[in-house]
Amino acid sequence: MKRPSGRTADQLRNVRITRNYTKHAEGSVLVEFGDTKVICTVSVESGVPRFLKGQGQGWLTAEYGMLPRATGERTQREASRGKQGGRTLEIQRLIGRSLRAALDLRKLGEYTLYVDCDVIQADGGTRTASITGATVAMVDALRAMKKRGALKQDPLKQMIAAVSVGIYQGQPVLDLDYLEDSAAETDLNVVMTNQGGFIEVQGTAEGAPFTPDEFNAMLALAQDGINRLFELQQQALAD
Amino acid sequence: MKRPSGRTADQLRNVRITRNYTKHAEGSVLVEFGDTKVICTVSVESGVPRFLKGQGQGWLTAEYGMLPRATGERTQREASRGKQGGRTLEIQRLIGRSLRAALDLRKLGEYTLYVDCDVIQADGGTRTASITGATVAMVDALRAMKKRGALKQDPLKQMIAAVSVGIYQGQPVLDLDYLEDSAAETDLNVVMTNQGGFIEVQGTAEGAPFTPDEFNAMLALAQDGINRLFELQQQALAD
Amino acid sequence: MKRPSGRTADQLRNVRITRNYTKHAEGSVLVEFGDTKVICTVSVESGVPRFLKGQGQGWLTAEYGMLPRATGERTQREASRGKQGGRTLEIQRLIGRSLRAALDLRKLGEYTLYVDCDVIQADGGTRTASITGATVAMVDALRAMKKRGALKQDPLKQMIAAVSVGIYQGQPVLDLDYLEDSAAETDLNVVMTNQGGFIEVQGTAEGAPFTPDEFNAMLALAQDGINRLFELQQQALAD
Amino acid sequence: MKRPSGRTADQLRNVRITRNYTKHAEGSVLVEFGDTKVICTVSVESGVPRFLKGQGQGWLTAEYGMLPRATGERTQREASRGKQGGRTLEIQRLIGRSLRAALDLRKLGEYTLYVDCDVIQADGGTRTASITGATVAMVDALRAMKKRGALKQDPLKQMIAAVSVGIYQGQPVLDLDYLEDSAAETDLNVVMTNQGGFIEVQGTAEGAPFTPDEFNAMLALAQDGINRLFELQQQALAD
Amino acid sequence: MKRPSGRTADQLRNVRITRNYTKHAEGSVLVEFGDTKVICTVSVESGVPRFLKGQGQGWLTAEYGMLPRATGERTQREASRGKQGGRTLEIQRLIGRSLRAALDLRKLGEYTLYVDCDVIQADGGTRTASITGATVAMVDALRAMKKRGALKQDPLKQMIAAVSVGIYQGQPVLDLDYLEDSAAETDLNVVMTNQGGFIEVQGTAEGAPFTPDEFNAMLALAQDGINRLFELQQQALAD
Amino acid sequence: MKRPSGRTADQLRNVRITRNYTKHAEGSVLVEFGDTKVICTVSVESGVPRFLKGQGQGWLTAEYGMLPRATGERTQREASRGKQGGRTLEIQRLIGRSLRAALDLRKLGEYTLYVDCDVIQADGGTRTASITGATVAMVDALRAMKKRGALKQDPLKQMIAAVSVGIYQGQPVLDLDYLEDSAAETDLNVVMTNQGGFIEVQGTAEGAPFTPDEFNAMLALAQDGINRLFELQQQALAD
Repeated sequence: MKRPSGRTADQLRNVRITRNYTKHAEGSVLVEFGDTKVICTVSVESGVPRFLKGQGQGWLTAEYGMLPRATGERTQREASRGKQGGRTLEIQRLIGRSLRAALDLRKLGEYTLYVDCDVIQADGGTRTASITGATVAMVDALRAMKKRGALKQDPLKQMIAAVSVGIYQGQPVLDLDYLEDSAAETDLNVVMTNQGGFIEVQGTAEGAPFTPDEFNAMLALAQDGINRLFELQQQALAD
Repeated sequence: MKRPSGRTADQLRNVRITRNYTKHAEGSVLVEFGDTKVICTVSVESGVPRFLKGQGQGWLTAEYGMLPRATGERTQREASRGKQGGRTLEIQRLIGRSLRAALDLRKLGEYTLYVDCDVIQADGGTRTASITGATVAMVDALRAMKKRGALKQDPLKQMIAAVSVGIYQGQPVLDLDYLEDSAAETDLNVVMTNQGGFIEVQGTAEGAPFTPDEFNAMLALAQDGINRLFELQQQALAD
Repeated sequence: MKRPSGRTADQLRNVRITRNYTKHAEGSVLVEFGDTKVICTVSVESGVPRFLKGQGQGWLTAEYGMLPRATGERTQREASRGKQGGRTLEIQRLIGRSLRAALDLRKLGEYTLYVDCDVIQADGGTRTASITGATVAMVDALRAMKKRGALKQDPLKQMIAAVSVGIYQGQPVLDLDYLEDSAAETDLNVVMTNQGGFIEVQGTAEGAPFTPDEFNAMLALAQDGINRLFELQQQALAD
Repeated sequence: MKRPSGRTADQLRNVRITRNYTKHAEGSVLVEFGDTKVICTVSVESGVPRFLKGQGQGWLTAEYGMLPRATGERTQREASRGKQGGRTLEIQRLIGRSLRAALDLRKLGEYTLYVDCDVIQADGGTRTASITGATVAMVDALRAMKKRGALKQDPLKQMIAAVSVGIYQGQPVLDLDYLEDSAAETDLNVVMTNQGGFIEVQGTAEGAPFTPDEFNAMLALAQDGINRLFELQQQALAD
Repeated sequence: MKRPSGRTADQLRNVRITRNYTKHAEGSVLVEFGDTKVICTVSVESGVPRFLKGQGQGWLTAEYGMLPRATGERTQREASRGKQGGRTLEIQRLIGRSLRAALDLRKLGEYTLYVDCDVIQADGGTRTASITGATVAMVDALRAMKKRGALKQDPLKQMIAAVSVGIYQGQPVLDLDYLEDSAAETDLNVVMTNQGGFIEVQGTAEGAPFTPDEFNAMLALAQDGINRLFELQQQALAD
Repeated sequence: MKRPSGRTADQLRNVRITRNYTKHAEGSVLVEFGDTKVICTVSVESGVPRFLKGQGQGWLTAEYGMLPRATGERTQREASRGKQGGRTLEIQRLIGRSLRAALDLRKLGEYTLYVDCDVIQADGGTRTASITGATVAMVDALRAMKKRGALKQDPLKQMIAAVSVGIYQGQPVLDLDYLEDSAAETDLNVVMTNQGGFIEVQGTAEGAPFTPDEFNAMLALAQDGINRLFELQQQALAD
């Protein structure tokens, strides 16, 4: 088996996390997993959704989008279609659940964090890049809140990162790019905490079903890859 | 640990599959997982979606809905809200992918199977009940097609069934009902083929992250449960 | 003239009213007029719509839907189309007006009753079956409110039932099924109180216009049929 | 009983039918029933809706709207709300069915008539004024088609007109204006052919149910009123 | 160059402003620029949009629509399409900005003026006719407010009127009708105050770009035309 | 008068045009006018909209969007709101008209160019930056078409650029940033060809009306500024 990019089976793409990418948001990151590029911003607003009013806790919600020509062929703009597609809703629900797992929402106070992940160039793995980058933007947003005196306690419980793995030409590989993703038999997205727990595991057999052994091999690859992503997040946050 | 229903950790709810539940559809099943009740119909239509035209293969697509008062508190009717929610879209995409895995779409010919899963009473596990019941309705729809002479080959490759597992009060349990589901730390939906392969594995940590060991314990429970569901499908189809 | 079902001109279909059909709703009925089957639930919620706030009275509103394959050919799901059709809106407005006529809304207090009529199998007369069944579900919902101590007075003024009549092959017939309905020259839906008054009379000439004499003959048939429906409602409520 | 307008119980409002009211449409009428004013246009387009293609017959469809300040209090513009309300859909379905009853659609050929009824001032009875006025506009549109040589046969079978009747302060009255309509116990809209047949009868008890006798008294009033409307249509068409 | 209507280059069409055109609105005008006819109503409501709450000032907002057959070919009704088109939104935003320029919103108090401009017949220049007519309707609405004692001060700062100019067959002409508009190389809409200032200038080259000299010639024509419109507004208001 | 940025009245912001910014689109530019940053892509697709079919000419259409946190306060995502706002539609119509003025659509052949302008950071002047940047992306897309042999003739007639001018603290200034824009009395957007003609002139008095003299002073500033933008476009295209 040879990967189209020439990478080894357990090799991440070149990952870059650029903080303060745009100037208005409390947290703003450009995350790149190879040619996949996502702008992740985290905005802080006072108040919480109605179902949480008066409970003294905060909330985090996420939205995801792609520029129409982020993809090889232009896709229709969801704003002009008049609705977000099922794939978009699924991804933004996943991002929201994943990032909420990083927080103690009671320590956040009555604030809402709006996470926006907008893909400006897509080459596979946009949801895992989004989660990995948005977590860094969220840390920046929390730091901005602390500076303003908006936080009494630190709501950050743990870091979160995500990666995709799959079975490509019969072999488990890490961090699929678009060429691999569209040919893979199985696609598995894994979200973990930096304490080694799973937050989400979503595996789909695109062609043949996958076996328990393949599954465990993929999980092991994912754990390794995510550990390297945690290091890259720390380096970015240390700059 | 004691389950609210008194079941043992590896015990399914009482599962019933009633065929020919309504009279118009080519396949029509009422599936019950305890108090969860879903009407699954499969409708056969000539022709395929535009992206498949002229390729000589068929298609299967699924839609999911809940009656407004299928739930403990009334939920707003999606038809009057003017759109399907993210949860609905996510579930119907899952059902569609799962059932397509049962079929060789080239052998189906240029027909589309519309799967409709409508929950009339919800008590946890509606998506896994839907997949398990709709597979039986699909077999009936294929039998109806054969009778009409619409099939030259049998497109059914394998049976599909699904179950939920979770960590409830620290312990893995099979086939969560609503009380367990809303209190579970982790929720995992597993879709398998009757040849032992995984089609979908979707795990979400609702509270604490789950460990690799918990994950493997849950998978083992799911495999056992699904094997019993395959038996129940066969009994229903033998009637 | 011979009716497709072999019934006499003034004969209702086999009507069954099954109470407590699902477990969550305060009132829940499966009503069957022959092969037409409708789940009618009535949900009780505190509060009233904005236009009634602070007036010390209650409200009742109705929604109607059909499962996509309730019909001979699959109809598109309104939730996925993104809107309810004109026929649906017309029927749910009719159900709402009819059931409100049963109530003294001032005695209901500031509660809203949500009536949901969902057709799981259609064979003509879904709107009249809905009204007849939902009235029974409403009585059960009021009984549940009394049990909880939510009612000081009984808001039920009278029972309501409905039936369709039409001119089929030149002759007035009662309770049209789908075969008759699609061939009828005239279709008349009649809603009455158990004190003999009319609540709604909606007649449409599908083919030739109808004469005053035909109109009166149809009304007489409807009155008889509705009286039998009131008996069936009472039997169901007495169980 | 005294009517707010001082009319006798069987007196129509001042009815005016102005043809050629706007210049672009094949048929264009301003119809006034007292202070109720509706612009009715009929537009002719080649072709028919998909469900009629290739059957050699025509179609007629109707749409209805109200200017936002046609009413005593401004109502929200349906175009900005993003959907037509239930009342609007109900009325435009009624107008369409009523006018189709005037035509032999096979003699129309593969043309579609679009009827647009737009209320510029509302004072009760907008649907019956619309039907009465649009029928005249339709005759003009058919005449325009004949001039162009688009018709081989005359598709007009009969004239159609409509009026409302009701029980106001215990007594049947003809052609309710807004003050009467909002206080009436019963409201009945009647559509007839000029050969004495009924096309639509839609009666609703707003307060107390109505009796068979009241019903017959209202129908008699309506028949008389509609006969006068047929005369007014003929006068307008003779100009 | 000869204009299709035979007008001279600097000649307005026959302009008529009919006040009190419909009876419900506080201000109601039919404005005619030749065959272009627009009903302009201004409705007064207590309260202001959320973004202005508690600031002690008022607001004015505008909506624009066309009857489906106001045009040479029927256009689809925006209410049934489910959204307003870009052209409609653009025009109603222009009308709103233009009329707000006439008012001192602080002197209006916490009221909202809803301006509705509905084109019943279109022959070019509907947006400029709307602005010119709606300004008169707004003056009537303010007079109605004064009568009711709802105004302490006069919020009217200045009158507003608008006209289109263009380059037709190489020459600047005033107040384009549809034939000219569809053939014009350039189309310029100008909104002015009666004190000689510009409120909006919107010029679009449809074919060849326009030169600074052409631009100035068009502006001069527009200024002259608008001055005549101010006289016609005054005459209408003096009746 | 002192500009917040310290610029002179006739000074552009720092303008940068980065070609090949993303990899999939035939033309892809990041344009920066100071802190305003817009990704402009041009996508080439075979075929034309229905209204142009069979006429042997091409088409260009534009869409515009802003990332939710491109602005100082987060704005709601249009895709999740379910529709594009009036401002968005107005801007994308302007971009489309402006860029079509650059092309001889008959020489383009039956292709459609989709222009997407997505603002990733907003600081005033997003529409003029979009037009200026998208013109460069369009040239790149045409070059890509030539390379593929898709063009027989060069459809580019002229370059297009745009800038805003305004009256700030009583004085005309060029290329307003957000601080100036929100305080300006007048805002004028000017689109020109590199042959000195005007394509669009859109001036709006935000506060006081503007005089003919102010108008001419603003136009002169805009002409100078746009000439410098044409030079910057040429430098970018020469790289």
